[in-house]
Amino acid sequence: MSRRGRFITIEGGEGTGKSTLIAGLENHFLDHGQRVTVTREPGGTPLAEALRGLVLSPPSDERWSAMSEALLVYAARRDHLEKLIEPALAEGQNVICDRFADSTRVYQRLGGLAPAIIEMLDDLVVADHQPDLTLVLDGPVEDLMARRKARGGSDVFEAMPLEFHKDVRQGFLDLAATHPDRCTIIDATQPPGIVLADALNAIEDMI
Amino acid sequence: MSRRGRFITIEGGEGTGKSTLIAGLENHFLDHGQRVTVTREPGGTPLAEALRGLVLSPPSDERWSAMSEALLVYAARRDHLEKLIEPALAEGQNVICDRFADSTRVYQRLGGLAPAIIEMLDDLVVADHQPDLTLVLDGPVEDLMARRKARGGSDVFEAMPLEFHKDVRQGFLDLAATHPDRCTIIDATQPPGIVLADALNAIEDMI
Repeated sequence: MSRRGRFITIEGGEGTGKSTLIAGLENHFLDHGQRVTVTREPGGTPLAEALRGLVLSPPSDERWSAMSEALLVYAARRDHLEKLIEPALAEGQNVICDRFADSTRVYQRLGGLAPAIIEMLDDLVVADHQPDLTLVLDGPVEDLMARRKARGGSDVFEAMPLEFHKDVRQGFLDLAATHPDRCTIIDATQPPGIVLADALNAIEDMI
Repeated sequence: MSRRGRFITIEGGEGTGKSTLIAGLENHFLDHGQRVTVTREPGGTPLAEALRGLVLSPPSDERWSAMSEALLVYAARRDHLEKLIEPALAEGQNVICDRFADSTRVYQRLGGLAPAIIEMLDDLVVADHQPDLTLVLDGPVEDLMARRKARGGSDVFEAMPLEFHKDVRQGFLDLAATHPDRCTIIDATQPPGIVLADALNAIEDMI
């Protein structure tokens, strides 16, 4: 039987470079002959991706309340854990997930949902399948925004006010402080190679 | 300000005559100059109906686990309560709902979900918005099946084994015994006019 894989989640606000880091980690694992599954939330399985569509693009200009959205996200998370994440870990693959429960904590709390409700759902759905390591990409919102503009990328920042992005950043920093056992903060304003090196150091420390 | 309306849920297995009773109740209220909203679960609002589609006809032969399905149904229920049921009750309408949380209790329990999990979700989502009255349509499964066959209706019974329908019946009877304050059992093998009369008596008693 193969050794159980590691469950690594990548968190942080918009524009912090999550996708670039994930591609770097995937290549690193493959270069070293380790199997890896890259996935994302909400989504990751056919049913969870169907829910992702309903959460991110609800039909006919309707809006979910924070509680309904949290229930939906956790329904998708359960499917994702049962059908993809746990089976992959059990057969020895490392699993890298782009956003996970910490994103729910940060964004639904900003949407007005009581933290106790999210923790109740997390205890029910995630239970002891918590990530082994959570890499939190962090940097001053203005710096990340300037970097993205300089690169000419589509500006996802403009959809929400600056203050919202600052609240998201603070939310992730608070979470990392609450869960120092599994969370490592990485300076997202560094060049991608340095961000990747920091992430690999954190993975080394975990092992 | 108008008096708050009554929240009446109609429960029971397949073929017990829920739709016929609901049409009779709706006509009765309208004949007596009372406003009424007829709705159903899962569903009732645009977002909840979108979830109904995912629950009852999941894409590409996928199946929800009992826990994911319960989370989805309660996400839909929250939307339904917030946007349709509560506003209608608040403006004095009676609301008749074709299935509600008791169906979740009966069917998800048969799907293997612990009752404590359903009650935890119910406390969170429905909280003090419980039905004022629940009419449970009940009869021997074989009798209801024979009646439906005699009428030449499509036989929804055949999709599941007889034993399943018997378990559903017992599940509703057990629930009614647990909540005698709001549940009234009605003999569904009676002619539709008598079933309606029994239901109206139960409504009279509630008021």
